[in-house]
Amino acid sequence: MIFLDCDYNNGCHEDILKRFTETNDEYTGTYGFDRFSSRAKEKIREACADPLAEVFFLAGGTQTNSTVIDCMLERWQGVVAAETGHINVHEAGAVEYTGHKVFALPSEDGKISPDALGAFLQGWHSDETRDHMAEPALVYISFPTELGTLYSASELDRLYCICHSFGARLFVDGARLAYALEAEGNDIDLPFLASHCDAFYIGGTKCGALCGEAVVFPGGRAPEHFFTRIKQHGALLAKGRLVGLQFDTLFSDGLYSRIGRHADGLAVLIPSLFEKYGIGRVLTPSRTNQQFLLVRKDALEALKEEVAFEKWGPYDDEYDLCRFVTSWATKRQDIESLESVLRGI
Amino acid sequence: MIFLDCDYNNGCHEDILKRFTETNDEYTGTYGFDRFSSRAKEKIREACADPLAEVFFLAGGTQTNSTVIDCMLERWQGVVAAETGHINVHEAGAVEYTGHKVFALPSEDGKISPDALGAFLQGWHSDETRDHMAEPALVYISFPTELGTLYSASELDRLYCICHSFGARLFVDGARLAYALEAEGNDIDLPFLASHCDAFYIGGTKCGALCGEAVVFPGGRAPEHFFTRIKQHGALLAKGRLVGLQFDTLFSDGLYSRIGRHADGLAVLIPSLFEKYGIGRVLTPSRTNQQFLLVRKDALEALKEEVAFEKWGPYDDEYDLCRFVTSWATKRQDIESLESVLRGI
Amino acid sequence: MIFLDCDYNNGCHEDILKRFTETNDEYTGTYGFDRFSSRAKEKIREACADPLAEVFFLAGGTQTNSTVIDCMLERWQGVVAAETGHINVHEAGAVEYTGHKVFALPSEDGKISPDALGAFLQGWHSDETRDHMAEPALVYISFPTELGTLYSASELDRLYCICHSFGARLFVDGARLAYALEAEGNDIDLPFLASHCDAFYIGGTKCGALCGEAVVFPGGRAPEHFFTRIKQHGALLAKGRLVGLQFDTLFSDGLYSRIGRHADGLAVLIPSLFEKYGIGRVLTPSRTNQQFLLVRKDALEALKEEVAFEKWGPYDDEYDLCRFVTSWATKRQDIESLESVLRGI
Amino acid sequence: MIFLDCDYNNGCHEDILKRFTETNDEYTGTYGFDRFSSRAKEKIREACADPLAEVFFLAGGTQTNSTVIDCMLERWQGVVAAETGHINVHEAGAVEYTGHKVFALPSEDGKISPDALGAFLQGWHSDETRDHMAEPALVYISFPTELGTLYSASELDRLYCICHSFGARLFVDGARLAYALEAEGNDIDLPFLASHCDAFYIGGTKCGALCGEAVVFPGGRAPEHFFTRIKQHGALLAKGRLVGLQFDTLFSDGLYSRIGRHADGLAVLIPSLFEKYGIGRVLTPSRTNQQFLLVRKDALEALKEEVAFEKWGPYDDEYDLCRFVTSWATKRQDIESLESVLRGI
Repeated sequence: MIFLDCDYNNGCHEDILKRFTETNDEYTGTYGFDRFSSRAKEKIREACADPLAEVFFLAGGTQTNSTVIDCMLERWQGVVAAETGHINVHEAGAVEYTGHKVFALPSEDGKISPDALGAFLQGWHSDETRDHMAEPALVYISFPTELGTLYSASELDRLYCICHSFGARLFVDGARLAYALEAEGNDIDLPFLASHCDAFYIGGTKCGALCGEAVVFPGGRAPEHFFTRIKQHGALLAKGRLVGLQFDTLFSDGLYSRIGRHADGLAVLIPSLFEKYGIGRVLTPSRTNQQFLLVRKDALEALKEEVAFEKWGPYDDEYDLCRFVTSWATKRQDIESLESVLRGI
Repeated sequence: MIFLDCDYNNGCHEDILKRFTETNDEYTGTYGFDRFSSRAKEKIREACADPLAEVFFLAGGTQTNSTVIDCMLERWQGVVAAETGHINVHEAGAVEYTGHKVFALPSEDGKISPDALGAFLQGWHSDETRDHMAEPALVYISFPTELGTLYSASELDRLYCICHSFGARLFVDGARLAYALEAEGNDIDLPFLASHCDAFYIGGTKCGALCGEAVVFPGGRAPEHFFTRIKQHGALLAKGRLVGLQFDTLFSDGLYSRIGRHADGLAVLIPSLFEKYGIGRVLTPSRTNQQFLLVRKDALEALKEEVAFEKWGPYDDEYDLCRFVTSWATKRQDIESLESVLRGI
Repeated sequence: MIFLDCDYNNGCHEDILKRFTETNDEYTGTYGFDRFSSRAKEKIREACADPLAEVFFLAGGTQTNSTVIDCMLERWQGVVAAETGHINVHEAGAVEYTGHKVFALPSEDGKISPDALGAFLQGWHSDETRDHMAEPALVYISFPTELGTLYSASELDRLYCICHSFGARLFVDGARLAYALEAEGNDIDLPFLASHCDAFYIGGTKCGALCGEAVVFPGGRAPEHFFTRIKQHGALLAKGRLVGLQFDTLFSDGLYSRIGRHADGLAVLIPSLFEKYGIGRVLTPSRTNQQFLLVRKDALEALKEEVAFEKWGPYDDEYDLCRFVTSWATKRQDIESLESVLRGI
Repeated sequence: MIFLDCDYNNGCHEDILKRFTETNDEYTGTYGFDRFSSRAKEKIREACADPLAEVFFLAGGTQTNSTVIDCMLERWQGVVAAETGHINVHEAGAVEYTGHKVFALPSEDGKISPDALGAFLQGWHSDETRDHMAEPALVYISFPTELGTLYSASELDRLYCICHSFGARLFVDGARLAYALEAEGNDIDLPFLASHCDAFYIGGTKCGALCGEAVVFPGGRAPEHFFTRIKQHGALLAKGRLVGLQFDTLFSDGLYSRIGRHADGLAVLIPSLFEKYGIGRVLTPSRTNQQFLLVRKDALEALKEEVAFEKWGPYDDEYDLCRFVTSWATKRQDIESLESVLRGI
């Protein structure tokens, strides 16, 4: 079986496992006050070229999104997201559960267009009945998006400027950040990201860790009492070192970059294989580790027998939309095997 | 000045005021356990031809919507509404404040189309990732809608059937119900409404009362411990008689119908006046007490000097969208004066 | 029947009814932007000798408590109350429903003792694990308390100082404020109250109005976006004039004081009557309109036939704890009749 | 340095680490649908002698408490806990954050007495105003308690019966369950526990795991849609195997019992050492891994130089209350070293 269904099916990258073994017997402080977490924070600050950045480690993506968004908003405020945004679709209403409205903007490729955002915020702020409305005070984007697409540096810059000109802030969900940073053609690096948003997180769970996300508040602008609020959200790990150590490792010797590069490099080979054998074609082009392809319905059965992947839904009479994903655990040989399978269909 | 800006600018209908005066010195029970409330409930049950219906009196519309919706939903569930629905726009995120997602469906005339609803619910229930998603378990519609439009009996019937075939329920916001029930061409009456939804409210505040809405749960299907939950929402009136007495009056001698008929009758005269003098034209036709007209920008200034109305926003280079509203307090003479004003522009 | 069970069983004070009648046909703005509300606010500011005070009108007590407390707290903060405090017992968990902890302090007479408060806050702030704890950032007291008792000016001053020395704020629930202000021996007036707390409300519902409470933020320190948050809580009245007009009336010609004085004057006669005839005795002395008496169990049946009152619970083998309440609607003759009844038992 | 400050300062038990290494490259399903989680659940069901039990894995204690309690309660309900209960003190108001009241009962030794619970519930249910009150529908106890003390089987049985006779349910926080189960004199085992409560969790984080708690709903009575609600709480781990594998290991070869026995065996040696050298004495006796001692103030400085422990607060002029904790990582030699230190003071 060739596993291309998901980037969190395996344990963790071997370097991380090795560090767990080496450090297991060391005594440390709790709740994030341990030397591994400190070191990881220092490395992240350095990678972001932001010596004042505040860094916090949480366990998973939905938890991070709902905790950060809730804490960046006042209670009468809501968050703007693409209709396809993870917080709007696949988090079981976790943001609304904390009491905040999600304003969903239409999107075709998973991205929020600066123009659409500007028009929405302009409309809200010029509405004379706005005192009767939740205030869009935060904008949520994912980088890469849920469809594997990327914002360019100039798009990010424009979004950030638009946010600020309307008194809103910008939060970037980087659950798969490694794959964005290392994608061919991407022109956003960590320092640029850190200086063009108000908060973002560096995904661990989907980028080689067992669990964990690193939330970064550039320039030290973390929400007040954020530690206590993490606890209140049930998101404070007693053994904070569990995530701290993993990020310490991910940010050593370029591991985080290597993981992203490796998975992206294999993922971008996939679409041409499908096209070469007439089995599928690209819907929205992606240079990251998630590839969304329209696959011929009559080929699905045969494909499923050899390849694990996700069917996202029907597209038309001939095609279904399917997702193929690579990770640190995907091997070049998996892609070669995929070609054999496609050739044989 | 001719006041056509709103239907809650004056006190209350004179019949209500009279009853306040007559009953002021009477001793009654509290929290809705008074003879006026009992009588009003009985009259509402009768008007709905639903002897088992449970009736509760709350103070205002947003309060009623957020309390009822919250109590009809389990915590992992959300409510579907038209994009233009009051709960989605003008209630300051009150539904989300109670922890529930609002799923907004596109709408052009303020209504949810049965087809769009069916497609949305079908899509949700066939999505294999639905365990990661908030469940659309309630559908909210307003009758009349925020744009003054009406559902037909067959549309309501279809919406109700679609809801139930997907395990969802239907809640009807009747903040301006009097104006819907009495509109020309309307084929929904209270018994039909009560037998084609799971909950609805009969609006008082915007239909002649000082305050108050009557929530009806047909067939006695009120949420468990609803009394306690009203209290928990801060919505329990100590002197429940305040609202009870008003509905007792509104449902005596056909007053509620008379108020609706009176306001509708005057409202529908307005569009033709604007057209007659070339000052404006209809965007979405309405037979209820709210008329939305495209008014010539060059006529606005002159109009504003004599008429109170609401500008809802820009439409195009030539027109702005404006709202004109009548109520029990509007007089035939107001419409005649409006004609004079329009003639003179 | 002599009604001494509650102070909100009747309609409203006749002066208020008269004003409703006189003003019913007047056109006004909505949502509190009406001339009656403006005038009432002005009068309240004057009565408080606080020209900068911000005043808001809400419909009822629980609503006011939960809205104000929620808005004065950040999300990681909680409110301190006497164990017997209304928010801790009889509001169906409305404060917790908004996400905030209620810290309950033991109390014998319904009051929080400054010493107990100081010790509690001192303990919290010196606890090294406080980052794992909700922060007591607001103190709630009721004046008069749920047991009819009163704080003295010096006690209020001490509580206020203690709050501020620990970074907390003080909120005073004045649901029955009229009865406190006019009680014999009371040394707190509105200006003193306004300058010794961060927020308080002037009760209307239990002091002669049909509904309504006036929230006062001395010195203009209302929570940010409080108008929108009132709406979000479902507490914004469309016809704000309903409450505005009532407070306009209550603060004209000393009506609010007269109502308090009248009810207190009659209430304080009650205990001695019970003692005189050996039917009951005082538990906690009260000079306000609520009298808590231990009534002989063997007298209860006979008493109930002629007098409406509330049994609060068993006390010992011989006595039950009962509450007797007066209001603007109580007549001197009611007390005389009570004496006849007691004499006859 | 001798570390007796906490039971979650180190990595994880070596058996767990070994299994991480062995299984790291295995491909599995996500979100708990993996073979390790399945196996762990099976083993837990067996250990509980409850084949229908439903088991869920969460990451940490506060998260587990707030998620389970929220999901076991309807919105108008609250949870009863000892004043000293973790949810009432050290979880940053996480339960209230989900909207539920915590009713705190006085406690001297960390336990809720059956009599006090019965009286409280009896009082609530006989209160005629209970429709205005949050309903105590769940009782939270910790086993062992925050003070290291234990309920006996007969006490647990009584609490469970009292709960059920008042329509309430019982939830047991077993963050340190291993240390309770293995304590000398304890007469509660897993099957007894599972048949005498409605939900409990088996603590991992404080009992040798890197993270993770196993929630057990005996008899298959998990809350509806609990999976979705875990997600909504931000508590669903993408790599569910992370916790599944750890519990699979903890419940293999009696590891969980061994960990408990080891730590308890060392902990109970501590008090007599302090007494032997006149440095401290027991306040509340404990047979579990947490020992609370009154330590002579004049000995604290010297002690701190050699031993890590927690000062819990002042006790009197002579003593401070201190906590000493053992874990799987504590060695017999640590206790011997402690004796040397005490001898030398």
